[in-house]
Amino acid sequence: MLVIGERINGMFRNVRAAIKERDADVIKGLASSQVAAGAGALDVNAGPASDDPAETMRWLVTSIREVTDVPLAIDTTNADVMRAGLELSAPTALINSTTGVQEKLDTLLPMAAEFKVAIIGLTIDEKGVPRDAAGRNEVALRIVAGAMEHGIDTGQIYIDPVILPVNVAQSAVREVLASIRECKILADPPPKTVLGLSNVSQGTTCRELINGTMLIMALANGLDAAIMDPFDTAMMDAMIAAELLLDKHIYCDDFLKAYRSGR
Amino acid sequence: MLVIGERINGMFRNVRAAIKERDADVIKGLASSQVAAGAGALDVNAGPASDDPAETMRWLVTSIREVTDVPLAIDTTNADVMRAGLELSAPTALINSTTGVQEKLDTLLPMAAEFKVAIIGLTIDEKGVPRDAAGRNEVALRIVAGAMEHGIDTGQIYIDPVILPVNVAQSAVREVLASIRECKILADPPPKTVLGLSNVSQGTTCRELINGTMLIMALANGLDAAIMDPFDTAMMDAMIAAELLLDKHIYCDDFLKAYRSGR
Repeated sequence: MLVIGERINGMFRNVRAAIKERDADVIKGLASSQVAAGAGALDVNAGPASDDPAETMRWLVTSIREVTDVPLAIDTTNADVMRAGLELSAPTALINSTTGVQEKLDTLLPMAAEFKVAIIGLTIDEKGVPRDAAGRNEVALRIVAGAMEHGIDTGQIYIDPVILPVNVAQSAVREVLASIRECKILADPPPKTVLGLSNVSQGTTCRELINGTMLIMALANGLDAAIMDPFDTAMMDAMIAAELLLDKHIYCDDFLKAYRSGR
Repeated sequence: MLVIGERINGMFRNVRAAIKERDADVIKGLASSQVAAGAGALDVNAGPASDDPAETMRWLVTSIREVTDVPLAIDTTNADVMRAGLELSAPTALINSTTGVQEKLDTLLPMAAEFKVAIIGLTIDEKGVPRDAAGRNEVALRIVAGAMEHGIDTGQIYIDPVILPVNVAQSAVREVLASIRECKILADPPPKTVLGLSNVSQGTTCRELINGTMLIMALANGLDAAIMDPFDTAMMDAMIAAELLLDKHIYCDDFLKAYRSGR
């Protein structure tokens, strides 16, 4: 599966400070250390506080590109910031993210087609996050159909069925697992699936235990990617073991090491 | 899910020695400590070396019954030993186990009906373990149909789709997961599912990591029970977290403690 490192995000205090002071070493350090820890892509989010968010995104992408060329997930709700990020990172980039809301689709699907990049689609529509798996996959279908109209390869779409914090929406987890499994039949090639994993443990205790367990359960249902913390070694080990059990790489006694050195 | 403690088994050196010396304290200690660690049932296996295996089984069950009345899974391939165990433990017992082989079914299904106990059915037939999920569930159906002919409630059947060591049969894991999910449609009420979990890591490195990851993946596909090591605290924690995520008990900040004290 694709690990999308979540740590370059203005929500983190050290990143926010680095952005403010234009301290590129912090950003470059987080980029290379996440890749070393197993991230195959990096989320890039400038966070809430920025006077010129497009320029901030350009600075972040440029800084990261000095140390790694893994795909970047340009994470913003602002279309101008998205374009600024994509101009410096396409075609190995992901749009993070559209929803099923028509206005979003009308803005972001043409951009995905223009830059020939993958796009994450959250199963959210005008009424919010649907209650069950069927509702989520109705929105997923709208995203997939819209992408097809714009000539986007359906294998380039990452459906995110939106995991909610388990302490406030406990029954949602089962629906998310079912949605991951079922959305594969929406198109051929099937859309990929992704989760913003840490959200499941927002506000809970034992966050690493909950995140790691959720990841394994989602992998067992066919998850393709997650925006997550690659520095959580226990979770990364469990992910490697899960992929081993799913026959994605060949067993050897040193399978943890082999996986890590083979990347 | 039902945790069936695996530790009272003559394959373990301390148990073998205790059986030989009829040291009941060792057996009683293993029984009460497994229950304290979260086992809701206990597997009882006299192991290979015993002159009078039926008498050994009687001694084991009698010793365990002095400290706990959780259900016992009488684990033997010998019909006389099975009967000896069931006479002292029914009706809160499980037959561990029949297969789909007709001779086994003809012996053990009447015994399950006679003692009104649950029965574990391994998806093994005359040709061995089927290669894929469909083959496993064909055998499961034979077991379920046979049980119905003997008037056994299908909810009292535990189908075990036979997990094999990942280092020798890596592609089997996916088939086992699919089998767990699909065998639920074989009858109404659906048969339950169980795994002899530790088998997946037989001969591998990182056994706890592999066992724990396998358990979570199976739970995410609907597993009801596992024969496993309740002393593996990390695995028990992950199991509790998985059940929380599956909405089987209500979230609270102390969910690990609450689960353990609520048992």
